[in-house]
Amino acid sequence: MAIDHLDKPSLTPSEVRSMCRTDQWPFPATASCSDGYVQANLIVLPEKFASDFRTFCKRNPVPCPLLGETLPGDPTIPASLAKAADIRTDCPSYCLYSGGKYLSTVTSTKEHWKEDSVGFFIGCSYSFEGALIAAGLVPRHVELGTKVPMYRTTVPLASAGVFSGTMVVSMRPYPASAIPQIIALTRPYSQTHGEPFAYGPEGAAALGITDKDGTKPDFGDASEIREGEVAVYWGCGVTPQNVVMGLGDKIDGIVMGHEPGQMLILDLKNADLCETDL
Amino acid sequence: MAIDHLDKPSLTPSEVRSMCRTDQWPFPATASCSDGYVQANLIVLPEKFASDFRTFCKRNPVPCPLLGETLPGDPTIPASLAKAADIRTDCPSYCLYSGGKYLSTVTSTKEHWKEDSVGFFIGCSYSFEGALIAAGLVPRHVELGTKVPMYRTTVPLASAGVFSGTMVVSMRPYPASAIPQIIALTRPYSQTHGEPFAYGPEGAAALGITDKDGTKPDFGDASEIREGEVAVYWGCGVTPQNVVMGLGDKIDGIVMGHEPGQMLILDLKNADLCETDL
Repeated sequence: MAIDHLDKPSLTPSEVRSMCRTDQWPFPATASCSDGYVQANLIVLPEKFASDFRTFCKRNPVPCPLLGETLPGDPTIPASLAKAADIRTDCPSYCLYSGGKYLSTVTSTKEHWKEDSVGFFIGCSYSFEGALIAAGLVPRHVELGTKVPMYRTTVPLASAGVFSGTMVVSMRPYPASAIPQIIALTRPYSQTHGEPFAYGPEGAAALGITDKDGTKPDFGDASEIREGEVAVYWGCGVTPQNVVMGLGDKIDGIVMGHEPGQMLILDLKNADLCETDL
Repeated sequence: MAIDHLDKPSLTPSEVRSMCRTDQWPFPATASCSDGYVQANLIVLPEKFASDFRTFCKRNPVPCPLLGETLPGDPTIPASLAKAADIRTDCPSYCLYSGGKYLSTVTSTKEHWKEDSVGFFIGCSYSFEGALIAAGLVPRHVELGTKVPMYRTTVPLASAGVFSGTMVVSMRPYPASAIPQIIALTRPYSQTHGEPFAYGPEGAAALGITDKDGTKPDFGDASEIREGEVAVYWGCGVTPQNVVMGLGDKIDGIVMGHEPGQMLILDLKNADLCETDL
């Protein structure tokens, strides 16, 4: 690739957003991009569902930590999250849904943004990966240069009006002996899913996940669970997209989300969202 | 009973607490007691687990809405919750646990309260029953004068340090046609479990509850699900006690909780905790 010379971790958030806006983003995932900066999941809904969705996030803060939202009809990302940024174009790619069905993946949602569209920004587990990498616990998908693998689970979420469904989790394989350290490292990132939801075969059973070797995720890319390793699962901000897919015609119009694994990079620093008193 | 003349809804919170303190509480449940006032679940843990428990509540706000806590070793209930009140005596009855096992039910925990004990106050669904009653939707257990039925579920909670386990729910049977109204009425009570978590046969399946007629709850008293009615399930503040039972020796010392269905009555009004903008 002509972009081999790009150093992904050193790209600034505004450089990444500019590359996305001009369709020049060359990577399959934003993992390990813009070291130290918060990455966000997106979902864009008609305004009449906004109140229910806010309540849904409050009631399910582990998969759906709500970082902020746009004004209805205004695609400007709040300056507290990212400056001079447009929710319609500044993410590498977007998934479109209608009537609960996936339609297509696009690099701009300009033609689908409506007067009553409200965009929501939800924390992403890529945000705590810098802390794992600094401790020598490099996530497998960073090593492989792929998207993190994500799974649908059977875990029911707390309902809120029209919104109900089951949780999505992200997965990283680690030696079982590293779990206490992983819990301690990721716990302070409570706005970006925090400590693992579950791990190991017992955790997979509780979540209803049957893919034992990490090769058949529902979203993102296949991984490898190596000998002596167990799967470690975190809440995942793709959950709202999965919920929307389960709601069918209850949500009318086009719903837009980021492409799982291809996140919006904010100007916020991970350290700004880190709760050090936990 | 000599206390037949007592009008349960009109008792003030301090009258109820005084009756409890002097072992004169005559009712099998605090449901419909002290109309308009918040009822609370309790759990008392050694201080070394307090930080993990706070995080656990934050991550699971539907079953575990944390209203407040005592100072370590000080049994005085914070005045913001209840005035001149003692967590050791002012609840009708308490359950004691050790090594994850239920020990006994007592009317005072004075002899078990330690220098490092911290008491936590968690919202209770009895708090929204006034709104249901006012709308003519009298909970079955209020009609029967019994404790609300509660069930263990298979729904895994978000872990926090030592705390992990599955959710407990309370159940009230209602005609299926009343569900939209029930959701609307209970939704604003977000500090006391809010709108239902699930309902009907599909909800029971998602929660792993097999008791179809409401006669075999895990906590509280048997109920009756009548023809045309479905079971409606809410998050329940007995969840922490159920979690402690599942942790076995991970929690050392005596853990104290309220007796499920026999709550602490606070001086707070339900209206104070009601979010009217939902």
